[in-house]
Amino acid sequence: MAKGAGMRMRQSKRGQVEAFIVMDVMEAARRAEAEGRHIIHMEVGQPATGAPAAARAALQARLDRPLGYTVALGLPELRAGIAALYDRWYGVDLDPTRVVVTAGASGAFTLAFAALFDAGDRVAMGDPGYPSYRQILRAMSLSPVAIPTLPEHRYQPCPQEIPADVQGLMLASPGNPSGTMLGPQAFRTLLDRAAELGVSVISDEIYHGLSYGERCHSALEFSDDVYVVNSFSKYFSMTGWRIGWMVVPEAHIRTVERLAQNMFICPPHASQIAALGALDAMEECEGFRAVYAENRRRLMDALPKIGFDRIAPPDGAFYVYADVSAMTDDSLRFCGEILERAGVAVTPGLDFDPMRGRRTIRLSYAGSTDDIAEGIARLSSFMASR
Amino acid sequence: MAKGAGMRMRQSKRGQVEAFIVMDVMEAARRAEAEGRHIIHMEVGQPATGAPAAARAALQARLDRPLGYTVALGLPELRAGIAALYDRWYGVDLDPTRVVVTAGASGAFTLAFAALFDAGDRVAMGDPGYPSYRQILRAMSLSPVAIPTLPEHRYQPCPQEIPADVQGLMLASPGNPSGTMLGPQAFRTLLDRAAELGVSVISDEIYHGLSYGERCHSALEFSDDVYVVNSFSKYFSMTGWRIGWMVVPEAHIRTVERLAQNMFICPPHASQIAALGALDAMEECEGFRAVYAENRRRLMDALPKIGFDRIAPPDGAFYVYADVSAMTDDSLRFCGEILERAGVAVTPGLDFDPMRGRRTIRLSYAGSTDDIAEGIARLSSFMASR
Repeated sequence: MAKGAGMRMRQSKRGQVEAFIVMDVMEAARRAEAEGRHIIHMEVGQPATGAPAAARAALQARLDRPLGYTVALGLPELRAGIAALYDRWYGVDLDPTRVVVTAGASGAFTLAFAALFDAGDRVAMGDPGYPSYRQILRAMSLSPVAIPTLPEHRYQPCPQEIPADVQGLMLASPGNPSGTMLGPQAFRTLLDRAAELGVSVISDEIYHGLSYGERCHSALEFSDDVYVVNSFSKYFSMTGWRIGWMVVPEAHIRTVERLAQNMFICPPHASQIAALGALDAMEECEGFRAVYAENRRRLMDALPKIGFDRIAPPDGAFYVYADVSAMTDDSLRFCGEILERAGVAVTPGLDFDPMRGRRTIRLSYAGSTDDIAEGIARLSSFMASR
Repeated sequence: MAKGAGMRMRQSKRGQVEAFIVMDVMEAARRAEAEGRHIIHMEVGQPATGAPAAARAALQARLDRPLGYTVALGLPELRAGIAALYDRWYGVDLDPTRVVVTAGASGAFTLAFAALFDAGDRVAMGDPGYPSYRQILRAMSLSPVAIPTLPEHRYQPCPQEIPADVQGLMLASPGNPSGTMLGPQAFRTLLDRAAELGVSVISDEIYHGLSYGERCHSALEFSDDVYVVNSFSKYFSMTGWRIGWMVVPEAHIRTVERLAQNMFICPPHASQIAALGALDAMEECEGFRAVYAENRRRLMDALPKIGFDRIAPPDGAFYVYADVSAMTDDSLRFCGEILERAGVAVTPGLDFDPMRGRRTIRLSYAGSTDDIAEGIARLSSFMASR
């Protein structure tokens, strides 16, 4: 019998994806805290706040009745509520039947990649970008293709940079880690060029609602032949609830429904109830945004003065992406030094840009304003002492 | 601009998976109810009960604090609680680090298939079986390979039936739709033969805890070189919460962790809190099981008398799988007739066995005993009137 006999099950090649480096940073921060140190968290991409009160109240009121499976595409009233956001935010009239409620934006990516691409297909994305794009693609036997983007293009790909030999293109505006946004003209020309090339576009709009100057534009303002991914995690402050959505072209609804039935059965019912409540909490969510706006204002004021002066324009989201090449070409070590000496956790750029991320770091300002102020003070002392 | 211009995005080949037929049955039942008819639901694979009171209380008590991301593998105390179940249920000493909390059993399958198999790999499974195995495999560019099983083998594959040219094998005991179980000797010889062939085994144990004679055996009693999938959906009556788990060999933990970080970030936090509470609700869960036991007793008594006499031995789960070849070779139409004339929703076997399912149906007894009694009465009149 094989029990304990050391016989090893095979592992797949595609399963050997990379870890999030930010997880290692979080773990190092946790260890420092376990040793009694006080750490300011500017590494995590999640609000310090929880779900809006209306979201929690909605679930509370529903807990005494069974929460069984819902239909695969999500509660009809939630799909309708999400569709209404598109009118409110962008003036887009969206048919709720095109809205697919998903297990977070993560679940949406899995469904999109299965619905659009076959094994071996190539999907392009701007670097720096959200690291899981390329890891989920690999786990599904797809090939990520990097488009190295430039600060002078707001770290967004340009139409002429879309490779002709790819089947898909990921866009993200506001981007993570950069926070930079595509203006309407840039967005439109990118979508036009992708259409010319026959490239399927997935627009990650997970930070929508969180902008500090111009409003965010949705790909749906310019085309219906696009997958749009969003989530209740960021603007609605519901990361751990794992509830998001995707808008798909009408002709793709049935395909995505069948995939969702089989791969997920349904999104978490309790989270759907809470999300429905969250749609009534716009005032509280605007309050969250006001905190990020103040945090951002303080960072943008302080960072250049203390030596972080090469910063991408943080139009939206809650990140600042800083070029630290004047200080280091080993951002992992640099972030370790900041954690060790300043007690501030920040993320090395390597997570977001495997090629050039040794010279960048990401700072998150999703925490409280007090924490950000303390973080700035600590970073300031750290930089002064170098 | 392409807006509304009818330009079509491509769809993948692998995305063209099949729908659950049971979903169509549910929709037909819903329509009948909308027309004012009263329908007995014996089609759905979920308890009529909700989450145990202790599960709901645990979440209630936690709702006032933010539910952010958890670590990818799940809350450590939940992993420890799940590991303790293996001692209680099987006398197996399980290291909690081998437990991966997942977004339902569905999320576990996605992780397992990504960690174990590369595009083009072949994975065998007994027919009849859970339909989503083959659809998730297809969506991930893997090839399902059917092993047609026989009633005289309790609808379970035999060791000599494992194809030599597959990389993986799905086992399910108790099975869905059959409810049949593998005894310890049969289970051990299957695992031994798979190991000889170098075939990776995934053991779906989602109905464990729900047996009515012999206890269920876990693959972990016989081997550590196996992936074991389970869930809070069935025994713990928490379908809509989308919370399950997987036990993996020690050498696979880090691979699965990285995949989970990227593909899911974490399982739903609220559901993890509720699941932790559910582990303290064994008495309430045993009460649920007593209801299924009574339902099963009534069905096993009544069905042969009214004409359904070719039934797989329903050792566990909450299904009866009946061979209706004496009555029809079009189970879809037969089920439509039962819904129309008797007002009872049951599922055609086609969902579970694409080849032979035209001659079988599945009846679920997860409902209340009153509903099952009424269902039996209606089926009895229907059969008498044919």
